[in-house]
Amino acid sequence: MKQPALLIIDMQNDFVRAGAPMQMPGAERIIKNIRKVMEVFRNLGYPVFHVVRVHRSDGSDVEIFRREMFKSVPFAVEGTGGVEIIEELRPLQGEYLIRKNRMSAFMNTDLDLLLRSLGIYTVFITGIQTPNCIRTTVFDAAALGYHTVLVEDAVAARTSAVHEANLLDMANIGTVLISTDSTADLVRG
Amino acid sequence: MKQPALLIIDMQNDFVRAGAPMQMPGAERIIKNIRKVMEVFRNLGYPVFHVVRVHRSDGSDVEIFRREMFKSVPFAVEGTGGVEIIEELRPLQGEYLIRKNRMSAFMNTDLDLLLRSLGIYTVFITGIQTPNCIRTTVFDAAALGYHTVLVEDAVAARTSAVHEANLLDMANIGTVLISTDSTADLVRG
Repeated sequence: MKQPALLIIDMQNDFVRAGAPMQMPGAERIIKNIRKVMEVFRNLGYPVFHVVRVHRSDGSDVEIFRREMFKSVPFAVEGTGGVEIIEELRPLQGEYLIRKNRMSAFMNTDLDLLLRSLGIYTVFITGIQTPNCIRTTVFDAAALGYHTVLVEDAVAARTSAVHEANLLDMANIGTVLISTDSTADLVRG
Repeated sequence: MKQPALLIIDMQNDFVRAGAPMQMPGAERIIKNIRKVMEVFRNLGYPVFHVVRVHRSDGSDVEIFRREMFKSVPFAVEGTGGVEIIEELRPLQGEYLIRKNRMSAFMNTDLDLLLRSLGIYTVFITGIQTPNCIRTTVFDAAALGYHTVLVEDAVAARTSAVHEANLLDMANIGTVLISTDSTADLVRG
């Protein structure tokens, strides 16, 4: 496979850790798999993009449907510990950080510009959560002309019904679904 | 005037200070005027947006026509002193910071989203330099439906011929050109 890039989405303390304001149940379960996928990319020297949600503390850049909630329970606020990527998936020097404040990793970010500059045509996608940030990123990637590969046991949703329904829709637009264990073979192959 | 916003573009050490790698001659001359305009907005409690260029140290997000140059003379690199906004125009707490890596303040940023969220329809534009970051921002603002006001003695170019030629083109697409001294009256009026 021509050099692909890995996207790891929203694996931040505020969304992953037990008791965090916006904890996504199931996020902790996929850490191990994301690490495995990340190691495959690192070992081959392929680019890893750490995509994170970051909000201004005044909430002016929060989606309208969450703006009220944010006032009482702020999350992913710039400069706080909650916005940080979880310890297990900390970026290495030289890896890319993409800051977003919407679901899609492409919306109002330079992700597409960077991928184009690096000559990348295929993105592998991991992180949380399947119906929102994962799916919007997959659909935008497809719209922008990237081959998309979803590592299905390295993404998570609140319920398995939601998860499965979304996987089907993504497969139906040509997204390749693979498991963590088959990632290395596909990337090298 | 319904609440407008002020954009101050690229007034960073690397572009303004004598001897800086990408010094824009003429930039120091407009600091005083930008301060006056900024004070007008601050005194009325109107939003101020500080727009800055920020590059990754590996240069992967630099425009293609500057990428070679960046290797020998890096500029606006994240985490360096050169990327900082000049002392005289330092943002206050609660003002907005917009990070970009292209000319237009709208390209791959959340500026449009924030202006919409704040209910803003008019932008005043200041900073450097007239034919590049200023003009692309003005044209994008117009395309996105904003009334645009250019404070013509608070923007600068390398030569007055370039400056004047660009002012004409911007006036021709409906940009209002005003002086620093008339800003307060227009904003309050």
